[in-house]
Amino acid sequence: MKITDARVVVSSPGRNYVTLVIETEDGITGVGDATLNGRELAVASYLSEHLCPLLIGRDARRIEDAWQYFYKGAYWRRGPVTMTAIAAIDVALWDIKGKAAGMPVYELLGGAAREGVMVYGHASGTTLEDLSADFQRHLDLGYKAIRAQAAVPGLDKTYGIAPVDGKLYEPASSNVPQEDTWETTAYLDFAPKMMAHVREQFGYGVHVLHDVHHRLTPIEAGRLGASLEQYRPFWIEDPTPAEDQSAFRLIRQHTTTPVAVGEVFNSIWDCQQLITERLIDYIRTSVSHAGGITHLRRIFSLADLYGVRSGSHGAGDLSPVSFAAALHVDMSIPNFGIQEHMGHRDPAGEVFKTSYTFTDGYMHPGDAPGIGVEFDEDAAARFPFDAKYLPVNRRLDGSVHDW
Amino acid sequence: MKITDARVVVSSPGRNYVTLVIETEDGITGVGDATLNGRELAVASYLSEHLCPLLIGRDARRIEDAWQYFYKGAYWRRGPVTMTAIAAIDVALWDIKGKAAGMPVYELLGGAAREGVMVYGHASGTTLEDLSADFQRHLDLGYKAIRAQAAVPGLDKTYGIAPVDGKLYEPASSNVPQEDTWETTAYLDFAPKMMAHVREQFGYGVHVLHDVHHRLTPIEAGRLGASLEQYRPFWIEDPTPAEDQSAFRLIRQHTTTPVAVGEVFNSIWDCQQLITERLIDYIRTSVSHAGGITHLRRIFSLADLYGVRSGSHGAGDLSPVSFAAALHVDMSIPNFGIQEHMGHRDPAGEVFKTSYTFTDGYMHPGDAPGIGVEFDEDAAARFPFDAKYLPVNRRLDGSVHDW
Amino acid sequence: MKITDARVVVSSPGRNYVTLVIETEDGITGVGDATLNGRELAVASYLSEHLCPLLIGRDARRIEDAWQYFYKGAYWRRGPVTMTAIAAIDVALWDIKGKAAGMPVYELLGGAAREGVMVYGHASGTTLEDLSADFQRHLDLGYKAIRAQAAVPGLDKTYGIAPVDGKLYEPASSNVPQEDTWETTAYLDFAPKMMAHVREQFGYGVHVLHDVHHRLTPIEAGRLGASLEQYRPFWIEDPTPAEDQSAFRLIRQHTTTPVAVGEVFNSIWDCQQLITERLIDYIRTSVSHAGGITHLRRIFSLADLYGVRSGSHGAGDLSPVSFAAALHVDMSIPNFGIQEHMGHRDPAGEVFKTSYTFTDGYMHPGDAPGIGVEFDEDAAARFPFDAKYLPVNRRLDGSVHDW
Amino acid sequence: MKITDARVVVSSPGRNYVTLVIETEDGITGVGDATLNGRELAVASYLSEHLCPLLIGRDARRIEDAWQYFYKGAYWRRGPVTMTAIAAIDVALWDIKGKAAGMPVYELLGGAAREGVMVYGHASGTTLEDLSADFQRHLDLGYKAIRAQAAVPGLDKTYGIAPVDGKLYEPASSNVPQEDTWETTAYLDFAPKMMAHVREQFGYGVHVLHDVHHRLTPIEAGRLGASLEQYRPFWIEDPTPAEDQSAFRLIRQHTTTPVAVGEVFNSIWDCQQLITERLIDYIRTSVSHAGGITHLRRIFSLADLYGVRSGSHGAGDLSPVSFAAALHVDMSIPNFGIQEHMGHRDPAGEVFKTSYTFTDGYMHPGDAPGIGVEFDEDAAARFPFDAKYLPVNRRLDGSVHDW
Repeated sequence: MKITDARVVVSSPGRNYVTLVIETEDGITGVGDATLNGRELAVASYLSEHLCPLLIGRDARRIEDAWQYFYKGAYWRRGPVTMTAIAAIDVALWDIKGKAAGMPVYELLGGAAREGVMVYGHASGTTLEDLSADFQRHLDLGYKAIRAQAAVPGLDKTYGIAPVDGKLYEPASSNVPQEDTWETTAYLDFAPKMMAHVREQFGYGVHVLHDVHHRLTPIEAGRLGASLEQYRPFWIEDPTPAEDQSAFRLIRQHTTTPVAVGEVFNSIWDCQQLITERLIDYIRTSVSHAGGITHLRRIFSLADLYGVRSGSHGAGDLSPVSFAAALHVDMSIPNFGIQEHMGHRDPAGEVFKTSYTFTDGYMHPGDAPGIGVEFDEDAAARFPFDAKYLPVNRRLDGSVHDW
Repeated sequence: MKITDARVVVSSPGRNYVTLVIETEDGITGVGDATLNGRELAVASYLSEHLCPLLIGRDARRIEDAWQYFYKGAYWRRGPVTMTAIAAIDVALWDIKGKAAGMPVYELLGGAAREGVMVYGHASGTTLEDLSADFQRHLDLGYKAIRAQAAVPGLDKTYGIAPVDGKLYEPASSNVPQEDTWETTAYLDFAPKMMAHVREQFGYGVHVLHDVHHRLTPIEAGRLGASLEQYRPFWIEDPTPAEDQSAFRLIRQHTTTPVAVGEVFNSIWDCQQLITERLIDYIRTSVSHAGGITHLRRIFSLADLYGVRSGSHGAGDLSPVSFAAALHVDMSIPNFGIQEHMGHRDPAGEVFKTSYTFTDGYMHPGDAPGIGVEFDEDAAARFPFDAKYLPVNRRLDGSVHDW
Repeated sequence: MKITDARVVVSSPGRNYVTLVIETEDGITGVGDATLNGRELAVASYLSEHLCPLLIGRDARRIEDAWQYFYKGAYWRRGPVTMTAIAAIDVALWDIKGKAAGMPVYELLGGAAREGVMVYGHASGTTLEDLSADFQRHLDLGYKAIRAQAAVPGLDKTYGIAPVDGKLYEPASSNVPQEDTWETTAYLDFAPKMMAHVREQFGYGVHVLHDVHHRLTPIEAGRLGASLEQYRPFWIEDPTPAEDQSAFRLIRQHTTTPVAVGEVFNSIWDCQQLITERLIDYIRTSVSHAGGITHLRRIFSLADLYGVRSGSHGAGDLSPVSFAAALHVDMSIPNFGIQEHMGHRDPAGEVFKTSYTFTDGYMHPGDAPGIGVEFDEDAAARFPFDAKYLPVNRRLDGSVHDW
Repeated sequence: MKITDARVVVSSPGRNYVTLVIETEDGITGVGDATLNGRELAVASYLSEHLCPLLIGRDARRIEDAWQYFYKGAYWRRGPVTMTAIAAIDVALWDIKGKAAGMPVYELLGGAAREGVMVYGHASGTTLEDLSADFQRHLDLGYKAIRAQAAVPGLDKTYGIAPVDGKLYEPASSNVPQEDTWETTAYLDFAPKMMAHVREQFGYGVHVLHDVHHRLTPIEAGRLGASLEQYRPFWIEDPTPAEDQSAFRLIRQHTTTPVAVGEVFNSIWDCQQLITERLIDYIRTSVSHAGGITHLRRIFSLADLYGVRSGSHGAGDLSPVSFAAALHVDMSIPNFGIQEHMGHRDPAGEVFKTSYTFTDGYMHPGDAPGIGVEFDEDAAARFPFDAKYLPVNRRLDGSVHDW
């Protein structure tokens, strides 16, 4: 089944998305998501200039061979740009394979290992009252698990707080990076209060998650975890920058609060130590930033061996193609934990027609053959790329901090 | 796709085989191999008495769910009987999945990652001259890799020596276990001479393998490996009994001769340390004794992460169903190393119609949908079970040694 | 002393039991228990089809030789079916040896190292009040140590809760596996409350045990252990699935609550790391699932070296033959800890006439020669096998969880 | 000192190079190399679309701030594309800083710690005789250290063999990746013979290096190292794919042959374990692929702590800008080891006017302010980008191998 065309479409239906379209000689088309938030065009270039010419004429059925060819053949391996490009090819080929088999992709991955995929939504507020209202709104929508973030008093900006206009949170909102300010002391003082507030209001019958967003040192993260233990968070996410995996040993010594890490990881090597030393409880690698379905399954398989569950990144910075692919993986693996679900801003739905559904806190990818997302290129053409950057974080002295 | 029937067929077309047949409501039938050499009826009972009743009515598409259900639901986990039973179900379900998709199973596993599967044959002799003749015969057949075993002078029996009548080697040849005699000193003296003989005769353009068959202590194995280094064996297999995985550290300290282990393993837990500490170079777990395609892929995926390649067991004690399934896995994984190929005694071919091929030292599973093996139950009925045992090994003082 | 007959009797006097009977030329008969709950017929087949024919004519006095012969001679080693079969032979031979010597088996194992064997009983309730009543009932019976389990609010089923009709707990109760639902959050919330309740009611003068039954992740188990510390449980049992022994390192970091593991283990290799790294405090391997008296003594001997005490499984899923054998081992080893004692449902007593006694919380195997259990085959014939399965556990999303 | 312009120039004067030019308000211009062989346009896009707009208006003096801003501010960190882009900015800013100070960059890095930088050249041949001739030619040129590569008999292509026309070796030579064939056995047989040949011909008065180019497993690399020990190579380079740093423990067990790794690394995290466990002797990270002078100095500083010396990649796939920057770093650090020197194909010299010099096997960056390379944009415009790919390597069975 030869590939006859491979092209990259960059569009901005509510947010910038890079979509790879692969066509085969027998008329089957597959799509993959190559979006790297704030660095979209580098991946688009990587694909269209360097990889797409090599796709033409290849056998679309040989997914593993393609993966190895583009991974090992790149010579310069790993990293977000490379792995996101490979992921887009991989997902598109699985989409094609599913369509050729007349099966949803999760059937090819071993079939449904569960009835549905528990997702968590994002509640936030500039005050604890606003957070409560948003949290209640998510409960009313049926979410069984909700991430809670609230503005830290004394800081001018806090990560993860949605705008008051009711729109989805979108940190990449300006044509130069917004500069936030960070002060750890204020955060460490506030976080337990916020969690206490949520538990007081909503009790222990709902999973409450919290994202630290890479801002603490290991010992600070250990202290945070210990201070939150009595409120039993489902997890704390990204407590420290995770390039140094061994740093998590220190967190682990001080708290039993579950730890989730990995949306910024691009390969199994980025989390091998975290997993094999059991330094985390949830691995949050995403299908589009961690090399596609082929590689993500290897990460999750390793995690399963060490009692680590999945908790894939699923923010709106990945297109519906990625989100659908994630649901297919989630359905099929034994050690699924939870799936982030943020949804997509309008008019993404005009460009990406999806078959996945949300019912009572659980999602299902649907049973359309392949990934289950139709990509409307004509619609995409109506929403041209609009350059945006994620924020940059600075400490009170002006030095750059992790955002 | 509900399962409507699941039955176990025990037959002996040249050797005893236990075959699981699963039928579905839409008429697709899948087969799995549940043969455990010398303990066949225990697996047959495990399946027919305890698992088959639970298969009826299950959705044949949910392979992962079935695996977890029978593995975790057994409560008493692991071990050869349990895992061989689960493997038979797993392979049968993959067979069904492939047929439903209209694809050979290797396509569902990611597609062909290579053109063919390098196999190794078994050459042996009661004398070095006989070994040479048999080795040459295998070269003439096109084998690129050949296992060499020769009778150890001074021992009345040596593992792995085929009969002079030209039939395939079959150690399970009697209705009580044959009792062999073992003496390590004689073996350690002879093995380097045998390898030297092979290299002198046939040079270094062919891969030469050797099976130690679990009979040495770690330090003896280290010495053997060192004594063989100059002859560059492709591997030495099963140098010591492998229940204690850490024993291989000692072997590893003393030799760079590659080590292969695993035909007796039943789960990833049996080789986790061997793999993650890089104590071996080839993992020889088989699809039918290590939990089927679903679990074997997890083992190989872990192995890949640690630079360990596959080298699956493929003796005639597994039925052609297992061998075909192995070839599908072999075709699809990135870290395939080599596949054992011993073939099957007549009249196995009357019962199992296979689609795999051998060309110039490489094999291919063929492109029939599913596993590619048709099981003829009427033919099987003509060859009733014939109880056989593997040998038992004793040292010169009469104590039981590893066979 | 040649063996003249070896036969397997499957019966269901209250529960399914597989009993091996070995007869010798001089008229001494020995019995062994080969029961593997829910997989009974696989062990029966393993024995009757493959091992019993090899017993005929063997010297019943050579117990170690038989053990090595069937363990090493099987080639495919370990696992619940194989090791339970070997255990039955081993116990039957020890029974014969004792009868030949005119001594209870514990005398052959070195004689009584204590006056009696402290056992623990099972108290449970669907409410805390019911648990209290049952706990008090066990105190009244004289138990010095009692396991406490209560229904977790919000879950429809909880492991370990006996029926209200006063019958013994029997989870294997249906002809297809009952499917339970599991939710970790509810359990972790409830367990400390239950333990607090017990200590408030009954103080610290009684040993209180609790069985987690393999359902937590390591970090959750660490948290549970920490949350129970103030209530000083005697142990928490099976906190996580124990295939990966290294997982217990994480538990160990976070709590000094003693940990007991091992009823599902089949050999010393399953607990070697747990013991040598001192990751547990009690090893719960049973005589019938861990290879018989011969092998169990080796496990306990290793445990003694590392300060780990015994705590053998003794639920009703093992026959009185196993329970008696356990008491003989318990009497003789230096590092005995505690022995589970659940008793057997009627009419087990009609089939198995036992000589062991219970006095004031302690048991004694009695001084009848051998194991001290008479097996009435005629009675057994009145209670034919009645297929039952242990439950399967599913999470709220329908995926299979450890039961 | 505000930046007023930042632009990317892609040209192909003999080979494709991506050059970043930064201009400041006071008229100082700096240049950086952003070349990533075979993926050039992805880095060009990363810079021109996403980073260059953010450079305008920044203070060119704040090099550390820029590094942190682009590294941490990217959110998606590490990898060859990202780190090469950041490196280009970093080197350009150091170039500006040097020019502003009127000093060569090495003065700003602490001044000259040595008189010159020992470099090694590349000798190769399709036969051992050709290798000898080329080796002699390098000796005649004054090289004190020479890398030796020769075609492996039996393989159709071997890495590292320069064309017979006397041109520099350039593997990226076609508009689709050339597919090479790999067979480890042939290589392991040949490598010691080649090294023996070189030592016999040229003795031990010259440093002989050898590049394995990522193609072995750890145990094979251990064997290679052992087999070369008597010939005392200066190092063996890239023996195994280095994503899994712990693999080098196995190599280390078996040989004292020095090991060099790192041209594919992009950050200190890629070699942290290799260095801190002392698994290598030379760290070969390059200034342009490992985040620029700022980050490379941190890597070398860590290496110094553990007795590891530098050995920077210096092939022709990096532009003269990178090479010059490398020499400045080499001059200034205490633990310099050796510097690769391959030179650049004509007409690179028309585009990049360099001030570095070669004398008797040693190089010096010269004393021009800044990096010492003038970039002629008009000349560059005459050599448009010409897409090329590095080869892909396949094993005999057609599966992808590391190239």
